[in-house]
Order: sequence, then structure tokens, then C-alpha cells
Amino acid sequence: MDEGINAGKKAAAYKAVDDFVKDNQIIGVGSGSTIVYSIDRIAERVKNENLKLICIPTSFQARQAIIERGLTLGQLEMNPKLDIAIDGADEVDYQLNCIKGGGGCQTQEKIVDYCAEEFILVADYRKDSEHLGDSWKKGIPIEVIPMAYKPVQMKIQSKLGGKANIRMATKKAGPVVTDNGNLILDWCFEGKQNWEQVDTFLHSIPGVVETGLFIQSAKMVYFGTAEGKVYTRNKNQDMLNSH
Amino acid sequence: MDEGINAGKKAAAYKAVDDFVKDNQIIGVGSGSTIVYSIDRIAERVKNENLKLICIPTSFQARQAIIERGLTLGQLEMNPKLDIAIDGADEVDYQLNCIKGGGGCQTQEKIVDYCAEEFILVADYRKDSEHLGDSWKKGIPIEVIPMAYKPVQMKIQSKLGGKANIRMATKKAGPVVTDNGNLILDWCFEGKQNWEQVDTFLHSIPGVVETGLFIQSAKMVYFGTAEGKVYTRNKNQDMLNSH
Repeated sequence: MDEGINAGKKAAAYKAVDDFVKDNQIIGVGSGSTIVYSIDRIAERVKNENLKLICIPTSFQARQAIIERGLTLGQLEMNPKLDIAIDGADEVDYQLNCIKGGGGCQTQEKIVDYCAEEFILVADYRKDSEHLGDSWKKGIPIEVIPMAYKPVQMKIQSKLGGKANIRMATKKAGPVVTDNGNLILDWCFEGKQNWEQVDTFLHSIPGVVETGLFIQSAKMVYFGTAEGKVYTRNKNQDMLNSH
Repeated sequence: MDEGINAGKKAAAYKAVDDFVKDNQIIGVGSGSTIVYSIDRIAERVKNENLKLICIPTSFQARQAIIERGLTLGQLEMNPKLDIAIDGADEVDYQLNCIKGGGGCQTQEKIVDYCAEEFILVADYRKDSEHLGDSWKKGIPIEVIPMAYKPVQMKIQSKLGGKANIRMATKKAGPVVTDNGNLILDWCFEGKQNWEQVDTFLHSIPGVVETGLFIQSAKMVYFGTAEGKVYTRNKNQDMLNSH
């Protein structure tokens, strides 16, 4: 991995934490190569500023990272209202719609991120696209109940076109199984889409548990550049001025 | 159980099978005290008329019933397009919206029933209501990912009112766990609802797997009366003439 990009990821991850994290908050924490820097920064600030924070993980990986750094681990049952959530994304468009779930954790991520008052994205500049699908070619991850994968696949393809493929762990092994014991269909779409309609349709199909589409749920995104710098985009920012 | 009602259930269940089941069909088969008569009738007709049918169960109970009667068991993976599905309901309104899931199987039921070209309901007359909630007081069953039950519960109650309670197996034991390893919230609502909007909202909450609301998906319902007779209602029938 290029050193500049890593510096950019780190700068974006740090800035998001410095701008949004305050004492006594309940924070949703994601996972991935960028967010790991945010967790480092949260741990640094807890130590230096003696902050009282409760961290809710969005995945097994995030949970491990929270425990390893000695942060206070919370859970939704006791802390169902989060002040902020900081998470990564596979692609973010100009309207702050994003695709998550390249790692297969989109259901838990969405459960936690949608409990936050403010949801903040952190990513490197390669995830920044005018339209979803411009750079991310692996499709929209859709978690499905195993017995339903075939009719769900057929309904998606006949209504929306494209291809919905079962995500396999390796060519020789079985399918990827989620934390919830389900399978993932990666729907590779063609052309532009009305994401709100697509997401509502996908959720209407019996057997679909959750999608990796996050529709205008983020308040702000921090992008790290190849030169180690940061730029941001707000939810309601004039998109023409966002670069 | 009253003898007349059982005669009504049986008459309705038989008539649905006689009206809709034809040779070489793939049939979704539900479970419950009424549908069990339909399965008996299917088995009878397979034997007497030498029908070639493939039966897809909507629950573990239905699967057992198919196997016990020596019918041909199919699965959605190989048979994703069903000709008809015959299933029960906890309550059916004048628009043929229905509530299912008193037994906790609504997710698998919905997956199978929604694969059918024609979805037929069979129930006794006590399930027949002008509005959902008129007779069924146990609420709408909503299957949820266990870690999400608390925020889902809060979102439902704050947006829709009423109470969403975790379904417990017994007072001393743990919660009811579905076939998919999830929990069930029974949402007891108040007043009249726009069911399409309610269902879309429920599906939009991360952590909701499926609801027990079947919105105008049935083509016809057969009700058994207390006198052992049958009356029906069609999807597009003038509701004033339905009795």
C-alpha cells in the first residue's frame, strides 16, 4: 500500500475523531483499514484527555479493536442511542449515498450506524464517486436467508437487471456465511439507479435481511488524499464546491 | 374445539385444494389447524387421481406433514417458481391484507408464499375482520436480529406508537428463537393503520428481518363457518358483497 494513501487515511480518520468525538459520548465504531486509525485516535484521546466514552462495535473486527485498546465496550441493548458513529465505506457518491459490505458486515454496521445521531464516514479518495458503481465494481451486498437465495436472486435480476451472485469464500470452499448465519448476494448493477427505490424494493423481497446501501444517512464524509491530506463533504453541501 | 368450526375449517381447506390444485403443479404448503386439512386433501387427490405434485413447505411443521403423508418434498433452490401456495392466517381484512406469524414462522412462510403465482388463504370465520386488529390482539410479529431488538423496539414505538414486546417462550424460559436464530417482537398497535406504509417503514429499520404483514398478496381467501360451511372473498371483489 502506498505511503501517501496511508497518510491520507490516517489524517482523515484522525480529523473525523477530533471534529466529532466529545466527552461522555456513546460512539459507534466501524472497521477497515481507514477506521483502524480512528480507533487509535479515540484511544489516544481517551488516555490524554481522560475522556469517558462507550464504544459500540459494528463488527467482530471492531469489537476486537475496542477490546485490544482497552476502550469501554458497550452494547445496543444498554446503549441504544448513540451520539455518533464513525465508519468506512466501499464507495460514497456526491449525495452521500454509500455502499458498504465488501467485508460482509453490512447488517451489523447498519444496525449500529443507524442508531447514531450523527453518522460520519471516513475513506480514502478512491472511494469518492459521482455515482455509485463508478469505481466500486463488486456490486451491492445483500444479506439473504439461505433458503431464499434462489428466488431472491431471480426477483432482483428480473426486476432490476444485472447479476446477483452468491459470494463464495473461495472457489473450493463454501459460500461466505455472515455473523447471522446468512448468505450474501452481490448484485452487480448496470447504469444509474434511483437508490431509494432500489433499496425499498430490495427490502420488500421476503428473505432479504439487509442491504449494503446506506441512503443519505451520513452527515459528513472525510476523504484522505494520495498526498496525505483531507477533504470533506457535507450532506447539504453544494456538490459543485465539494472538491 | 367446537365440532362445527372443525367441519368449517375442513370444508374450506378441501375446497381451496379442489379449486386450485392441478396436475404437475409446484405447491407451497403452510401449516396450522386449518391447513392440515388441505394437506390431507392434497394427499388424497394425489392418491386417487395420481397427480404429480411437488410440495414446498413454509415451516418445519409443514415439512413434517408433507413427509408423513408421502408427498414429494421440493425446495426453493430447485423449484423457485410455485404455481400456488395455500396457507393459513391469524387475521384477514376486507382488502385481503393479513397477519401471519402467531406460530413464529412468518419469514419462511413469506419467502415461500411470495414465490407463488397464486397465493390462497384458508382460515375459519373468526379470522375474518374488517380491519386488522379487530379480532387479533397479539399484534404484528416482526422477526429481528437479536443484537438489534432494543433499537428496533424503540424506533417502532416512537414512530408508530403502541408496544413492541419480545415474544417469550414461557415466563421462566428465554425468548422464542426463530428457525433463523432470530427473536420476535410482537407489535401491538392502536387504531387504524396504512399497512403498506407501516410495512415499508418496518422493513427500513436495520435489524428487521421480516414482518408478519402480508399486504394484498392473497388472491382469494376461503373461510370456514361455525356451521361447517364455506364462504370466500376475492382480491378484487366488491367488499360489500363479500358476506
